[in-house]
Amino acid sequence: MILTVTLNAALDLTYRVPHLVPHASHRVREVTERPGGKGLNVARVLAALGFATTVTGFAGGETGRVLRTLLAADTADAAKDTAGGSGSLTDALVQVAGRTRRTVGIVDETTGDTTQLNEPGPHIAPEEWDGFLTAYRELLGRGAEAVALCGSLPPGVPVGAYATLVREARTAGIPALLDTSGEPLRRGLAARPDIVKPNAEELAGITGTAEPLRAARAAQRRGAHAVAASLGADGMLLVTQDGAWSAAVPERLAGNPTGAGDSAVAGLLSGLAEELPWPDRLARAVALSAATVRSPVAGEFDGPTYERMLPSVRVRKAETP
Amino acid sequence: MILTVTLNAALDLTYRVPHLVPHASHRVREVTERPGGKGLNVARVLAALGFATTVTGFAGGETGRVLRTLLAADTADAAKDTAGGSGSLTDALVQVAGRTRRTVGIVDETTGDTTQLNEPGPHIAPEEWDGFLTAYRELLGRGAEAVALCGSLPPGVPVGAYATLVREARTAGIPALLDTSGEPLRRGLAARPDIVKPNAEELAGITGTAEPLRAARAAQRRGAHAVAASLGADGMLLVTQDGAWSAAVPERLAGNPTGAGDSAVAGLLSGLAEELPWPDRLARAVALSAATVRSPVAGEFDGPTYERMLPSVRVRKAETP
Repeated sequence: MILTVTLNAALDLTYRVPHLVPHASHRVREVTERPGGKGLNVARVLAALGFATTVTGFAGGETGRVLRTLLAADTADAAKDTAGGSGSLTDALVQVAGRTRRTVGIVDETTGDTTQLNEPGPHIAPEEWDGFLTAYRELLGRGAEAVALCGSLPPGVPVGAYATLVREARTAGIPALLDTSGEPLRRGLAARPDIVKPNAEELAGITGTAEPLRAARAAQRRGAHAVAASLGADGMLLVTQDGAWSAAVPERLAGNPTGAGDSAVAGLLSGLAEELPWPDRLARAVALSAATVRSPVAGEFDGPTYERMLPSVRVRKAETP
Repeated sequence: MILTVTLNAALDLTYRVPHLVPHASHRVREVTERPGGKGLNVARVLAALGFATTVTGFAGGETGRVLRTLLAADTADAAKDTAGGSGSLTDALVQVAGRTRRTVGIVDETTGDTTQLNEPGPHIAPEEWDGFLTAYRELLGRGAEAVALCGSLPPGVPVGAYATLVREARTAGIPALLDTSGEPLRRGLAARPDIVKPNAEELAGITGTAEPLRAARAAQRRGAHAVAASLGADGMLLVTQDGAWSAAVPERLAGNPTGAGDSAVAGLLSGLAEELPWPDRLARAVALSAATVRSPVAGEFDGPTYERMLPSVRVRKAETP
């Protein structure tokens, strides 16, 4: 089982409007709701790839109830879609008193742009955080092969939360991937996670270095065993103790980059669980990202595109600048 | 008891953001949720004025559940706030299978502007509409003194719905006020409601005449016994079978006009229930509108401002242009 943690899960709403004009009133033509937050997106991709996946984190209030109902539908889909029957999605979210946040993505049908509004998360009480730690330890003990720690922290959760979760995973002997930003990333790094997956901006933010390879090496020195940096259209850069590689698809892709980073995490994590060599993990991450950019549905990857992309990903040794 | 009907009730969300920029990502600083839709706003003002008020219409899904929970809190407030104990708000919404819509108002803290996004309403099945008609007749029979029919129609409700509801009220001997727009207003007018309350744009839309007094008389010829047109900062214009009046507050008011039209409806309706002379109903509507524009909370009226404004409203005989 692969475990993903989403402490600040969200109910993602997408509104399609003919054209977004500030100060005007708009009729929303179409509303879609889906369970959101990085870890939930990662889990959906893993389940579609055929992995048994468990999601944890917090959910509460009416929005949390809707999120869990939609997640149950995804779970049923995961069981149906993977013909081998191996892919699954198990809800192990921890109930809290606060209300799960919403995010609203407003898609402008004229420009194709998306404007994003993210609510703050619910306030997590100290005893709720303690309850989560107990549940997390229990899940690690149920034979998790790898764990992904994803996204922002809701108010009330200690800023060193990810450092704690990384240490717990190490105690249990389970490799941990960390995908967050700012101070939680800085603190998490110090706990020596197996992989961190910042994007170029997050990497520059914590290292003060804009050049990706130099910055990735700096992040590695701060504690991560491996640093996988997503560089948008330039693909990914991976720095490990065994070497450094960069990888990209051979063509520039047009499409919607929403969720591409989460698909990359799913690629790295599945490769980690299967103990693939590093270049193969990287190729998988890049191909899944590309297949997500090309998918007609935001945040989902297109299976045939993934199969087609995987052998075409170019992985090269990266040289110290 | 005064009855208000809101067929397309909404859960109104207000998001405060530092500055709204299309295509950017925004952290929402503050989220507020309140029961919305014109009839619910009218009812809240009536309850605050000390009237026993009942709300009906449709509610469904998780958003409908949140709306009703918040309405119950408003009900408790109404009972507490009106010291005489006379003001009340009773929930007689009819449960439907579909999900109550949300509206999102994005307040830009830099410009002060609000950008509005309105979801479409739930689809109402024919048997749900029939169920509503039964409930509506029953409420009319429970001693309603006046009824307000407010807002847009959700999908599935016949476009002639308000005409039906106006006729049912007349059969029960209860005066009806209609506040809607477009084709539902056009059809509703033909059923001869006691008052219609269009704004200048809606009035021009159904009559093809931009000059307010001429347009109001045209709307009257199409069936309404009285036409009360809200003209924004220019106050209101009232055309009845007993005469025509215009009214405004003596000063231009800065503030948020959200809900000013709904407060005007509450003023007209309460005056109708108390059988006040027309000019007094108009003065009350204008003073309540002004006190709503000046309120720090969008859609609520400021009690002391209302008390101060009421004697200062200037009501004048309107002359045929």
